[in-house]
Amino acid sequence: MRKVFQAELHQIGEELTQISQLVTEAMKKATQAFETADTELAQDVIAADARIDFLQNDLDERAIDVLALQGPVASDLRMIVGSLRMSASLERMGDLARHIAQLARLRYPANVVPANMVETFMEMARLDIAISELLTELLETRNLELSKDIYAHNTRINELHAGVFKAVASPDWDNSPVTTVDLTLASRYFERFADHGVSVTRKVNYLVTGEWQPISEGSV
Amino acid sequence: MRKVFQAELHQIGEELTQISQLVTEAMKKATQAFETADTELAQDVIAADARIDFLQNDLDERAIDVLALQGPVASDLRMIVGSLRMSASLERMGDLARHIAQLARLRYPANVVPANMVETFMEMARLDIAISELLTELLETRNLELSKDIYAHNTRINELHAGVFKAVASPDWDNSPVTTVDLTLASRYFERFADHGVSVTRKVNYLVTGEWQPISEGSV
Repeated sequence: MRKVFQAELHQIGEELTQISQLVTEAMKKATQAFETADTELAQDVIAADARIDFLQNDLDERAIDVLALQGPVASDLRMIVGSLRMSASLERMGDLARHIAQLARLRYPANVVPANMVETFMEMARLDIAISELLTELLETRNLELSKDIYAHNTRINELHAGVFKAVASPDWDNSPVTTVDLTLASRYFERFADHGVSVTRKVNYLVTGEWQPISEGSV
Repeated sequence: MRKVFQAELHQIGEELTQISQLVTEAMKKATQAFETADTELAQDVIAADARIDFLQNDLDERAIDVLALQGPVASDLRMIVGSLRMSASLERMGDLARHIAQLARLRYPANVVPANMVETFMEMARLDIAISELLTELLETRNLELSKDIYAHNTRINELHAGVFKAVASPDWDNSPVTTVDLTLASRYFERFADHGVSVTRKVNYLVTGEWQPISEGSV
């Protein structure tokens, strides 16, 4: 019984890591589609999101089976309930990558972002990708040291997000209303992606240490 | 043991309903603050969100205790895991009401919405409030008939949300870039609030019937 249980716990951990890898891949492709107005790549991301949803569902059903059949308690129980939460956050990160790809597809053949805002958005995208790579490593290794960089990246994304609104409010903002809407949504998607990354990070920290960290300036 | 268990299940159900009531109240006040640029009311919503977060946490801890101490199986287990999901969605609805209140406070003493868009936003707000009132009743009574109206309201909100972007894209859009950003975010908040309402509704339907409904046009 115990052996089956450990195997199931291990499998749940593996699936979480796998979802996190797929999310990273989705964000990489979405970013490239967004940057280069590549509609085929955007289409890939949109199609691949179904795989993330499937894996989340599979993980959740497995977790419920373990709860029913093994009746775990204490830290094992918290790990399983935590996995349900983390899978929901990761699934949402996949949705946000999909939304970014959808914006790219919607505006094709034009780029979503005007030339003078490209650097801001590419920095946000790079940071989001870094967050989701660190998250995969954190889920695999439980090395809590990785959390610091995730929190720092999130703080920087919040600054960039605020910077977008500052740029829009400046008197020399001369982009069209539609571009203004696109940038607002895109910036919000990048920022929410990082928020969910922080939320998974805090959950891993809680599961390892048994304590909630105070919410830092940069987190949600 | 069984009696304690039933009492705990009942308490979890009560807390869900209570959170849903607080969410309704938050959305009502946020809407009024948004409509009338009432900064004190906005402040109320922002402060009251902490109570929703506290109740969600309390419900979650109670659910984990029940899982640990009672080892529920089958439909009871699904009900408890479902409650964890529903509490997360309801908590997020509270956050979105808070974001709407924060927009109102940020723009005070001005209104967020220009005169010719007020009717659109007020309809979205009314529909969101209706969704969250229906949700409270659904959680209390498990009367699945109520779901139909929730789905219909969500479909209508999606239309209104699309209508905002259509208005922005029209050649006679003459609002400032900052107003364009505000309306984009506000419209997104109202739309996401309804999405979460639909997600809780689908969960209740699943728990009662044991089957997932196909995702309707209006749902997420």
